[in-house]
Amino acid sequence: MTLSPTLELAMDLIRRQSVTPDDAGCQELMMSRLAPLGFAGENLRFGETDNLWARKGTDGPVLAFAGHTDVVPTGPERNWAHAPFEPVIEEGFLYGRGAADMKGSLAAFVTACERFVAKNPNHRGSIALLITSDEEGPAHDGTVKVVETLEARNEKIDWCLIGEPSSTHEVGDVIKNGRRGSLHGYLTVHGTQGHVAYPHLAENPVHTVAPALDALAKEFWDNGNDFFPPTTFQITKIESGVGSNIIPGECVVHFNFRYCTENTAESLEERVVAILDRHNFKYDLQWNLSGRPFLTDRGALVSASQEAIRTVTGRETELSTSGGTSDGRFIAPTGAQVVELGPINATIHKVDECVKAEDLDTLSDIYEQILVELLG
Amino acid sequence: MTLSPTLELAMDLIRRQSVTPDDAGCQELMMSRLAPLGFAGENLRFGETDNLWARKGTDGPVLAFAGHTDVVPTGPERNWAHAPFEPVIEEGFLYGRGAADMKGSLAAFVTACERFVAKNPNHRGSIALLITSDEEGPAHDGTVKVVETLEARNEKIDWCLIGEPSSTHEVGDVIKNGRRGSLHGYLTVHGTQGHVAYPHLAENPVHTVAPALDALAKEFWDNGNDFFPPTTFQITKIESGVGSNIIPGECVVHFNFRYCTENTAESLEERVVAILDRHNFKYDLQWNLSGRPFLTDRGALVSASQEAIRTVTGRETELSTSGGTSDGRFIAPTGAQVVELGPINATIHKVDECVKAEDLDTLSDIYEQILVELLG
Repeated sequence: MTLSPTLELAMDLIRRQSVTPDDAGCQELMMSRLAPLGFAGENLRFGETDNLWARKGTDGPVLAFAGHTDVVPTGPERNWAHAPFEPVIEEGFLYGRGAADMKGSLAAFVTACERFVAKNPNHRGSIALLITSDEEGPAHDGTVKVVETLEARNEKIDWCLIGEPSSTHEVGDVIKNGRRGSLHGYLTVHGTQGHVAYPHLAENPVHTVAPALDALAKEFWDNGNDFFPPTTFQITKIESGVGSNIIPGECVVHFNFRYCTENTAESLEERVVAILDRHNFKYDLQWNLSGRPFLTDRGALVSASQEAIRTVTGRETELSTSGGTSDGRFIAPTGAQVVELGPINATIHKVDECVKAEDLDTLSDIYEQILVELLG
Repeated sequence: MTLSPTLELAMDLIRRQSVTPDDAGCQELMMSRLAPLGFAGENLRFGETDNLWARKGTDGPVLAFAGHTDVVPTGPERNWAHAPFEPVIEEGFLYGRGAADMKGSLAAFVTACERFVAKNPNHRGSIALLITSDEEGPAHDGTVKVVETLEARNEKIDWCLIGEPSSTHEVGDVIKNGRRGSLHGYLTVHGTQGHVAYPHLAENPVHTVAPALDALAKEFWDNGNDFFPPTTFQITKIESGVGSNIIPGECVVHFNFRYCTENTAESLEERVVAILDRHNFKYDLQWNLSGRPFLTDRGALVSASQEAIRTVTGRETELSTSGGTSDGRFIAPTGAQVVELGPINATIHKVDECVKAEDLDTLSDIYEQILVELLG
């Protein structure tokens, strides 16, 4: 069987065991294909993370393909029917860790560029690739640092296409044009420890916090809007006491907001404090803002993506802002338009991760068509 | 300085490092003093626990002194100003682990018997001692097993005087004529684990249980009665989730009732289930009844104790049912009258545990006077 260049490259990438934060030579392999096209590559290494910033052209506008070479761990390999780092195509599916998330997309980026540059040697603007090896990990030394580096030298991305697996049933049926914000809260309620036989000498922090937690869980935060589902609040951890005959002295509660643009991190923090203060107990509260919400409204990148999907597949595309965070949260604040468009996400992070082989060729065609729409 | 026989014996007992369940020879030492008085002693060993049942006489009524030779651990000895197992009297106080809880009482039992038998060789009824070495531990192989043994051979205790430190400010100011019941509940609330970004696919057990916990904490259980303070409910542990971006699948809650005779374990269990069922979630609930409440109303033992305290100290005694459980919960159900009368409890289980030296002599006199009242 003759494999397409996209599938060949995807399999070469899957063979490299690049579990976060190890790039395992993936970026070098990609660069070996991009350099002949006229891309200038920079390895931006921070901590244990390899990042690649590759650019062809010096003018604007800049269309950047963004993604990551790292993959999540396999778990016990005995649970896999197909060895995770020995890619194989069976009954039309390519199996291997990273096949869908997201070495298939990386291969499609490269082959799309190859075909586009061959046909459009004098395209306008610049093509770039922003590739990291810690998207699946702490994400401290990856995209966020590359963006800082680019900002420092005033190098702008106009359009950013992230290859994250956005599709649900067929490739291109869903693209993400934004994400909700994520805000973590860490609450410690202070009571007074004591013996259960003498409750009048103690103050039980679980008793005092219970109605406040109920109020937070029942609070109506907002109704969402045309682009976002409503803001949600979830307690992710609660811990207090050791059982037996001791009234606990302290209760720890962790919670998380996924929030839309009808609220801000600041408005949510204020509202939580107001609810807690109504319940009259002593507490400490810390916050960690993982990412503000971002939205790429109708515009050149969304239109080009929709048009390219229609041209290549005949499909109409749904815009969505649901799901978890992505590295788009680091790129959108620079003013770039950001869209996520990649393969079907049904098997990501699971055993026997796979993607329909022909979808990667379709994806490569879509990426090429987007290049045509924007820089052709 | 010449020490009283009670203080000498108390110090001999403290020197034996009898941390639960180790008796460390204390019961043998006591028996060596009781045998010459005509007591027949039985060592009833269950598991690692030594129990002594010593009885003088074969007729009823039976007055039993009950107590324990085991002591709680010392914790780091460097925190003690006085070595815990090297008893010393300083400025009128006897220091050492067990001085108050309850080797002082054990010594007072023995010396009271010695004086009483010397003066009343032909007393009526029987005198007994029921001594265990695991009152401070799991209490599975101690008093409860001795009581079972006595019940099996139809050997009855009419009056049981427990030497637990009942006094608050002055020896004899408070005696306990009952204790509340103690009922533990272990609740597991079942939800559905999920990602915080997709709460509609999960069910957060902390959210569902919060209003039920609030309702339990605010419930009015009863108003107590002439003998008991009101029933109290306390959550002693809550645990759910790991934080981060995961909605927990399960929430574990432990709680404890200290309850009076206005409720029963069964009525409380029913009421908890009714409250939980109002809140519409899936759960498992297990119960552990540590002890039912018991009460020794006015009667010969209470009267004799009050009269003896008045005779020896001039004090009026307060009857109380507050505080933690005691081995009385095992003896009371046999139909025995049970009273706890011992030294001041201010330092029990603490570093530098101590008791006023002269209080032990007073206590011995009170115990002797009770013997006179009941068997003289």
